[in-house]
Order: sequence, then structure tokens, then C-alpha cells
Amino acid sequence: MFEIIDRDGLARICNLEVHGKRIETPALLPVVNPKTGPVSPRKLKEDFGFGAIITNSFIINRDERLRGRALSEGLHRMLDFDGIIMTDSGTFQEYTYGDMDVDPLAIVDFQKGIGSDIGTILDIFSEPDFTRAKATAAVDKTIERASEASKRKDDMWLSGPVQGSLFYDLRTRCAEEMSALDLDVHPIGGVVPLMEGYRFSELVEVIIASKKGLTPSRPVHLFGAGHPMMFPIAVLLGCDMFDSSSYAKFARDGRMMFSDGTFSIDSMSELWCHCPVCSKHTAAEIRKAPQGERERLLAEHNLYECQAQIRRTKGAIRDGSLWELVEKTCRSHTRLLDALRALPNHNDFLEQYEPLSRQGALMCTGSESLRRPAIWRYQHRFFDRYVQPDAEVMIALPEADKPYSRTYAQLLERLNAHFIILSSIGPVPIDLDEIYPAGHIFPPKEVDEGTRVEISRLWERFSHMHKYGLAVVWDGEETAELVAKIGPPSSERIDPDRTRIASVLRMQFGKEAGCIVEGADLSYVKSKNTGRIRNVMVNSIHALSIRATDGYFSLTDEGAKLLHSAIAYPGYRVKIDADAVPFIKKGSNVFSKFVMDADPSLRPGDEAMIVDPSDVLVGHGRCMMNRKEMLAFKRGIAIKTRSHGGDDDPGETD
Amino acid sequence: MFEIIDRDGLARICNLEVHGKRIETPALLPVVNPKTGPVSPRKLKEDFGFGAIITNSFIINRDERLRGRALSEGLHRMLDFDGIIMTDSGTFQEYTYGDMDVDPLAIVDFQKGIGSDIGTILDIFSEPDFTRAKATAAVDKTIERASEASKRKDDMWLSGPVQGSLFYDLRTRCAEEMSALDLDVHPIGGVVPLMEGYRFSELVEVIIASKKGLTPSRPVHLFGAGHPMMFPIAVLLGCDMFDSSSYAKFARDGRMMFSDGTFSIDSMSELWCHCPVCSKHTAAEIRKAPQGERERLLAEHNLYECQAQIRRTKGAIRDGSLWELVEKTCRSHTRLLDALRALPNHNDFLEQYEPLSRQGALMCTGSESLRRPAIWRYQHRFFDRYVQPDAEVMIALPEADKPYSRTYAQLLERLNAHFIILSSIGPVPIDLDEIYPAGHIFPPKEVDEGTRVEISRLWERFSHMHKYGLAVVWDGEETAELVAKIGPPSSERIDPDRTRIASVLRMQFGKEAGCIVEGADLSYVKSKNTGRIRNVMVNSIHALSIRATDGYFSLTDEGAKLLHSAIAYPGYRVKIDADAVPFIKKGSNVFSKFVMDADPSLRPGDEAMIVDPSDVLVGHGRCMMNRKEMLAFKRGIAIKTRSHGGDDDPGETD
Repeated sequence: MFEIIDRDGLARICNLEVHGKRIETPALLPVVNPKTGPVSPRKLKEDFGFGAIITNSFIINRDERLRGRALSEGLHRMLDFDGIIMTDSGTFQEYTYGDMDVDPLAIVDFQKGIGSDIGTILDIFSEPDFTRAKATAAVDKTIERASEASKRKDDMWLSGPVQGSLFYDLRTRCAEEMSALDLDVHPIGGVVPLMEGYRFSELVEVIIASKKGLTPSRPVHLFGAGHPMMFPIAVLLGCDMFDSSSYAKFARDGRMMFSDGTFSIDSMSELWCHCPVCSKHTAAEIRKAPQGERERLLAEHNLYECQAQIRRTKGAIRDGSLWELVEKTCRSHTRLLDALRALPNHNDFLEQYEPLSRQGALMCTGSESLRRPAIWRYQHRFFDRYVQPDAEVMIALPEADKPYSRTYAQLLERLNAHFIILSSIGPVPIDLDEIYPAGHIFPPKEVDEGTRVEISRLWERFSHMHKYGLAVVWDGEETAELVAKIGPPSSERIDPDRTRIASVLRMQFGKEAGCIVEGADLSYVKSKNTGRIRNVMVNSIHALSIRATDGYFSLTDEGAKLLHSAIAYPGYRVKIDADAVPFIKKGSNVFSKFVMDADPSLRPGDEAMIVDPSDVLVGHGRCMMNRKEMLAFKRGIAIKTRSHGGDDDPGETD
Repeated sequence: MFEIIDRDGLARICNLEVHGKRIETPALLPVVNPKTGPVSPRKLKEDFGFGAIITNSFIINRDERLRGRALSEGLHRMLDFDGIIMTDSGTFQEYTYGDMDVDPLAIVDFQKGIGSDIGTILDIFSEPDFTRAKATAAVDKTIERASEASKRKDDMWLSGPVQGSLFYDLRTRCAEEMSALDLDVHPIGGVVPLMEGYRFSELVEVIIASKKGLTPSRPVHLFGAGHPMMFPIAVLLGCDMFDSSSYAKFARDGRMMFSDGTFSIDSMSELWCHCPVCSKHTAAEIRKAPQGERERLLAEHNLYECQAQIRRTKGAIRDGSLWELVEKTCRSHTRLLDALRALPNHNDFLEQYEPLSRQGALMCTGSESLRRPAIWRYQHRFFDRYVQPDAEVMIALPEADKPYSRTYAQLLERLNAHFIILSSIGPVPIDLDEIYPAGHIFPPKEVDEGTRVEISRLWERFSHMHKYGLAVVWDGEETAELVAKIGPPSSERIDPDRTRIASVLRMQFGKEAGCIVEGADLSYVKSKNTGRIRNVMVNSIHALSIRATDGYFSLTDEGAKLLHSAIAYPGYRVKIDADAVPFIKKGSNVFSKFVMDADPSLRPGDEAMIVDPSDVLVGHGRCMMNRKEMLAFKRGIAIKTRSHGGDDDPGETD
């Protein structure tokens, strides 16, 4: 069982349950050497909270004594561990030492025989310097073996790694073919040399190429990843599981892992960590401890640090600050910075999983922040979906400290003007200044040169398409001066409330949605504190509520009806199985298994209309998944139904 | 007693000893409320390791009972604390509540009377929105009071704050006048509103303006700074002490401080911290604890986090990675990023304290890294000190992955060419590719737009001044092709070893220093592993050694003699008191109190010649301070003397 509990983009917190044993992902599976290790499996679970470990079936199989014990006692008893045990198959050993004469089916049978919870096929390790021919052969052989192994896995979970070296199309193809087989977990393989060589930007490409082909409904494991500074970016890209022996290997070399890098205990004058190990020992004590003791202490520190970073990452998924966390941790090494800077090249893919909005501010940590998918989407939708209101004059306003708010109201009374903010994310019309991310961004006081170039490009593009008779940049003049400069205005005036409603509708649901309010009689409930619109009555019926948190609409039943007439199938619809209709009508959530199809433009957090197979509206609610996920998952909520039209969202006064 | 032990630029680790009690700075002094607080002073010292605290003499003086106890028992017994106690005077209360009718001299006498280790004058809090007239009046009154108070401090240390609102010239003047008085500690005051408003870039300006005027020999205290995300940048700018009640105030509001921000315990699903508090409790347990208990737990967490960050910062000073740490922590909030981006405006000041080199790599965390003082200095020295060798052809080489090394040697044999790397820090001639920072930088794979513009500017500047007959950009051709393209070379050849020696001498000691090797007979000891020059014999005498760590020279006695003849007084000299000469000749280090004058261009880490008052060379060694520091400090080592010319540095083979 693998089910999303919480998410942010490709990153997700999931319940993973195998053979009655459950962990929450993202999770690190410490590598346990079946012969010896600095921390026992029991201790890993009891003291450090690791609910799953990984060990190597190849090593067990090769050792006469271990093999006998594992077959007779079972793996769990042998290792004294009652959590989830995953096993690897010997692929990495073949990569390291050459052909080890492993039989690909026998090793799967052996894993089953010793009671592994999650076995692994014997895939072909595709090294980064493979030729295309060699990588293709590795992929084909891996898929062939996975196909054969999948037929004899019985109730063991089986993991089928994605290979393909640095040929990204091969990675995607391998992932697609693996997803079509009866497998349970998909490791991304052949990546250890990339991590050892700090080739993180290529690792990002490999992960993204793999994720593009993988079904979203199975856990993705990043083979050999165990440094806490990598967890946030790997999780951001949709990796759910990690395994590594780094905690032990680093400890053997006297190295301490931190979320912002690695430090040698020999060079540390004092410990700045306050984990249970470091708060009980000085650096000198650890240095002077006998090798075994020293190794154990450092391994324990490393494990504490890994677990803390996993928890930190989960916290960031929950509170919507994962991008900030990733951008911070990617400052730990220039090669991680390179990886961070590779992400915007994939904004078209990342945007498919990008939530409609996040809670809290969008904090800029550097120039990289202004290239996030949320901002990319805003820019694309602005050019694609925004319709300019009929104004004579466009007044461009500086962004800093919103100095316009007071003068704005005065100007509005005296000019048929429309206001557009010279924002660090591009042009932001004042009617869009409350929606995410325009209303939530915390930009630097001065943007960097690259952003300035990008902003100019966006303004240039806008200047070629706007329809205003006159465009001026407001530099802080008094109202009268500006009016004098612009000349006698016509008697027409933009209705700012109506403009906002129509513009947000279009940004949220596409251009067609604007017609809901065109020509309609509109009235509003406004916040007493902020003066902002909260509820919108269309022809006297409450149809829409603007959420204070992200500036987007929640639909009422009436709103859903209007939207359904306004935009054609399949726009913003999720089509469900006829059998589920009565339950949805009673207010049940839509589980993914009942989804027959959905609009590909739906994103997590979007308002969606729930329709039956004949496109009859049966409800509405908020998407928890995008289309690809709804169709792939057999478990979990696809849409949180808003029963009885907005009753759970009664106009959010203040 | 206040003495530097270790340093990096303006940042320093010092011993601070008052009345026989010693702490190491940078240090946080937790604010102790004399009436009540979540953690007792004894516990602050014993459990958390705080050797100094701060409390408020004004509050004690106003409370009949506390006043009596403090005067009879003394402050230390009353608070049950045997470390250093600093007291504040009521300035902040006057700022908060208006005139409190405090007598400026009486409050100093009172602090003395209760046995405060470090008292504070009653300064005038200069608020950020003060007019210039008001700020000037505050500064003048503060200086007047400091002057009067300093005459009656007896053996109490007295701190005289720097005021001046946001008028940076006033800050500098105030600092200069304060430094001329008999005071012991200099807080930077009036900054709490800046920190509360996240106005960190203005805080940076205030600190720098104050540091410019302050004597380097006294500790600098940043009043009211207590968030761990601020410590690294404040330390980088030369702040030694902090005080804050934030640990307790934040705890009262349920907020947990982390080195990368603040999180409310109410919004945390799980704790990612493993401090002694967090590793014994879940987030839910802390949330549900009774208010007093909850407050204590959170205050303790906050104190652990603050101490860890102070230790982390000290570790970074010691291992030369403070800039990396600052750049990482400044990603925690966009306003801290603004502060980070304000630093390059002050590179001319920061460079005065910038060490010649640092150990380890110069890791780029973002575009900001390429604007550090170390790189600024390289660029300035390159245009100021570098002399082009006599070559016909200049070949510009791409930086990435140093693909040139093999071809370079082949080309050198066949062309009278000079090679310049198209580096991300500007033009780097191949003869400078081992010096810091050119040989130590870890640049991003692709530089940002702003850096690209800056690099182009530097190349443009260089292209107007270079003397080569032909300049080509090498794009990876084979040697023969390139030679064919360039045409038949003359028979002249650059001597790459001689070029390197002369160029590094000039970059390190100024243009004149090149003449040491001009026309001289040179021979070398080279590393067997790397082929790099280690020792240089000038006319058969070992004169120079190139350090493997930073690519710069160590002098031998002979080298110092040659340098002394080559460059005119006061270049790279430290003039010492005649009385100290015999000790230096025996190999003693030069203590700052014996320094009469020094070359203003000397930097920490520089090789310096030690001369007597008549400019007779008496020794040489490595600077621990710059001129301003040598003249200001009465304690500490100004130069580590290298006795008997290079015996402690015998050619560093490998």
C-alpha cells in the first residue's frame, strides 16, 4: 500500500505499508551489512526511528553460514529487525568487481526465500560513461529481467530499477516500460558515480527523466543517496526513499555529515551540533576514542543528522516551504548550486505537479527563486489567459513597498486608467495583485542582472500586445499633476471589482471562465478589515468566494453550475464512474479509483467540477492530484468534495 | 583583557577577561530579567555554557527590594552567577517608555556599586527615523555622557555605545570619538528597530560605519541581537558580543529559533531538531505542556540553538569558511539576502582586513560569492600589479575543467605565447593560476548574467591595455592547427617558471618586487608529485618558497634581504621599537605593543619585513594583523617571526 498523505509538487509524504509494516516516506533506509555494522538493526529502529532498512541478498547468499541462517530463520530474525527489510541483488557488486556470476532469477527466488519485504531484480548498472549502445543494452536487459522476475515475485514486493546512463530519453523509456510491469518500487539506478563525483546537475536530469516515465503511484527510491544535503532536492523531484551506507562509511573515515556539508572530526575544534552524541561529547573526546567507539559515535551522529533532515524536509512539504529549503541546502556545495540552477529548464514538467498555491510567503533566497515553477506558471498564464480591461491609459507602478495604494484610489476616480505593477516576476495588473504568487512574493530589494533582463523581456512582450492608448510610468507625482499630464479623461471608468473578478477567474480557470461575470449583475461581501472582496453574488446568488490565503476562488454550487456552462468539456472537470455518483452527491470525496478521466490542465489545489460520464455536473471540490496521478493511483483522495455548495466555506468573512 | 586568538577578516575569536573571569568571543550574553526568567543564571552557565550574561541596572535600581539586595549582596550573589555580568543603563527603557528621569552619572555609580563587571553609560537611543539634527544631538549628548562617565568608572569596565541613527558619517564620527575615550566595550546602539523591522541591509551599513570609526582593540557589542540567523553576518562584520532576551520572548510566544528562521511550535507537525530538549519531547508534548513548562522548554531549545550557531560561526572562522556560512545563513530571509548583497559596496573597507589567503576551497553559494573581497582584491591587484611577459601571442583559455593543461605544455614549446584563463573572476594569467583565490575557487558551471557582465567588463579593460601582437581564444584545436593558424613563431620563448616567480612576487608584494628576479640566475626545487615549484634559489641562494596551500611566497632570510633592497620604505615593513630589536633577532614574535608603524597595505597573512626605527632589516615573518590593528592593540602578536630565515618552512617538499 502506497498512499499520498501530503504533498508539494512532486514531493510527497506517503504511507508505505508492506506485509503489515508501515513507514512514512520520504524515508532513509540505512544499509545494514549482514555481517557487522556500527549500529545494530534493532537500535536503528528503537533509538533512531528507522522503520525500514536495506541489506544485500547477494552477500548473504555468498556466505555459507549467513545463507543457511537466512533461509532457516528468515531475514527478520537473523537481523533482529521487525520493520520493513528491502534487499539489493548484487548489481552494485557486479558494477564494482565485474561479473559475479549471479543468476538473475535465482537471486529473486533467494530474496523471496529469506523473507525479504522488498526484493530487487538483478538489473544492469548503466554507468555514466556508457556509450548509447551499451546503455540501450543495459536498459533492454534490465527490462527483460524485470519482466521475468515480476512473474515469480508472489507476495514479495519487487523493485525494478530505472537505468539508462546519461541518455535521458533511455531513462524515460526504461521508466515507462518498468511502470507497465507488475512491480512495486522503482529505484533510480546507476547514480552512485554521479553522487561520488558531485555531478548533481546530471543527477537532477536523471531523476527528472526517470520521473517523467514512471507511474506516480509507486514509490521511487534513489539508490545510494545518503547525504542529508541531498535529501531536500531529491524529495523535491519526487524521490520517496533513499538508502545509503554513508553514515557508516563516513564514520569510518572520521567524517561527520551535516545538512550543509561534511566535516572531518580531526579539523573540528568544537562541535556545533547538539544531537544526543555531540551534546554528550567534545570533539577531542570523539577524536581520542578507540577506533570502534569513535566509529560508532560518528555513525550515530550521522544517523541523527539524516533523520533530522528527513523530518525537516517533511516539515517543509507540510508548510509549503520546500522550495526555500531546497534553495538553502543547495548552497552547501557549488555543484548543488549547479543542480538547483538546472531546475528551471524543466519548469514545463515541474509545473504539471505544482500546486495552485502555497501557504505563507514566497521567500527569495537568491536569483534562483525568481525562476521557480510557480512564477513560470504565473508568467505563462498572464500572457495566455489575461484579458486587458477597456481603459485608455495604462499606468505602470513601481513594486517597492507598494507606494501606490493611496494614490491609486484617487487616480481611479479621475482617470479611465488601468494599473500594472512593475513586479520582479513581470507585469502584474493590479487586479491580479492578490493571487498566488504575485501577492505572496517577498522579492529582494534589488533584483539581479539576469532577472532584470528577464523582466525587461516580459515587459517588452507585453508592450507589443497591450491595447491602451497611452502608457506611462508613475514616478510618484501627485494625482493632479498626473491627471494634467495625461489630459482630460473620458467619462468611462473601469470597475475595479468587476475587473478583478473576471481576471482572477480567467487566470484560475482559463479565458472562457471570464464570461461568467460578463454582463451579469454582481454584488459583493467585502472584508470589514481589509476592504477586500470575500463573496461574489452573481445575479444575487452567492457563486464565488475569494480565499484570503491565496486570492483564488472557491466555488459554491451555483458557481460550479456557472462554470460548467461557461467552459467546454473537458475543462476543469473530473469524470467519475457512474457507480460513484450517488456517493459524491451525498458529499463523499472522490477516490482516485473512481476517476475515469480528468482535464490534463488540472493541478493539485485546483477547484474542479465533478461530472458523470455524460458530463452532468454532480459536485465540485478541490483537487489533491493532477490527471496523471488520478489515473495512476488506486488509493487516495483525488478530489476533496465540497458538499452542498460552499457550506464548508461560508464566505470566509475575516 | 581582550586579545585576538584567531580571525578571518573583521571576524575574530578573542579572549575577553574581566575581573579574572574569562569568556571566548564571539559570545551571546543572554538577557537575564532580575525578577524572573525561564532559565536561571546558574543554569545558563552550567548547562548551556554561557560565561557572561547581561541584566538591567535600571530595573534593579527602580525596585526597592532588588536595589537593596544588589547593593548589599552584590549583583553576582543576587543573581547566583559567577561569570561576567554586564549591565545596561535604562536607555532602552527611555526609548520604549519616554523619559524615565534617570541620572546619567548616578546610574553609572549604581552599576559600580552593585559590582557590575561591565557597566553601560546612559546613551541616547538614536532611532532610525531621527532627523539629522536630532541624531547629531543624540550623538553629542552620548559622547558627553561617555566622557564624564569614563572618569569615574574606576575598575569597572565601561561600555560606550555608538549612536547616529542612519546617518552613517555620524556613526563613524561617534565611533571615533568613543574610541578616544577611556572606555572598554563599544556596543552599537539604536539598532533594535532595524532588527525588528528586518531592515538588515541598513543594519549592515550601521555596523560597517561604526566599525570604520572604532578602535579594533576593544570588543564590539551588537545591542539586542539574539537571533541565530543573524550571528554569522554580524560576526563577519566584526561584532564580538550579542545580547538578547529573544530566547525568552520567542518562547513566551511559542516560537522556536533556528539558524535558518523562526517556526511556531503550533505549526510544527514534528520536530526536526535534535537538541537535548527536542530529542526528549515531541512537538505535541511541548504544545500541550502547561504554559510555564512549555516556555521553559522552548527557551531552552532557543538557547541550545543560539549556542550551536555561535560555535558553528567560530568553527567557520577557524577553518576559513565564514563567508560560505554567511552566504548560506543569509538565504533564510529575503531581507538577509539584501544585507548580503549590500556587502560588496564596502569591499574597499572589508579588503583592509581580508587575509592574504584562506585554507580550503572558495565555494560559490550563488552569484554573491563572486563579489567577495578576496575576488575584488584579486581583480584590483591584477590591474594594478600584474606585468605582462614579452610574448607575441596571447591565448585565452576556457576555464571549465582546465582542459588546457596537456596542450599548454606542447604549445609553449612551439609558440612565444602567453596563456590567460577566461575565469569567472576575470582574466587569470596562467602564471597566477596557483595563487589564492584564483587557484582555489569552485565556480558554478554557468555564471549568472551579472557576473557575465562583470567578467566582460574586466576583459574589455584588459584588452585595451595588453601588449600582445595577437590575441586568440583557444577552442580546443590540436597544437599543430593552432600553430598553423597563428603562423611561424619567433624564436623567443617565455620562461614559464621565471614568469610565474616574477608575477606572484608582484601580486604579493607590489610591482617593485618583481626586480628581485629580473636578470638574476634562478634555479628551483620542484615537487616530485605535481611538478610545481617549491623553492626558488636566487643566484644559488634559497630565497623564496612557494606555499602549496595558497601559491604565495614564504621568505627566507635571503629573500627578506632581497625584498628589502627591492621595495622602498615603508613597503611591506613593520617598524618596531629599538628596545625590541634584540628579542626579534633571537626569534621572538613581534607583539603589537612594540610596533611603531607599519605599511598600510599590509594584510593579515602577509609576509612582512621587520625593521628597526632606521629601516634596518632585523627579521621577517607573517602578519597576524593589519596596520590599524597593530597600532591599536596593546596585546597580542602582530607578526609571527620566522626565525633564522625559513628554517620552519624548509622548502615544503610534499
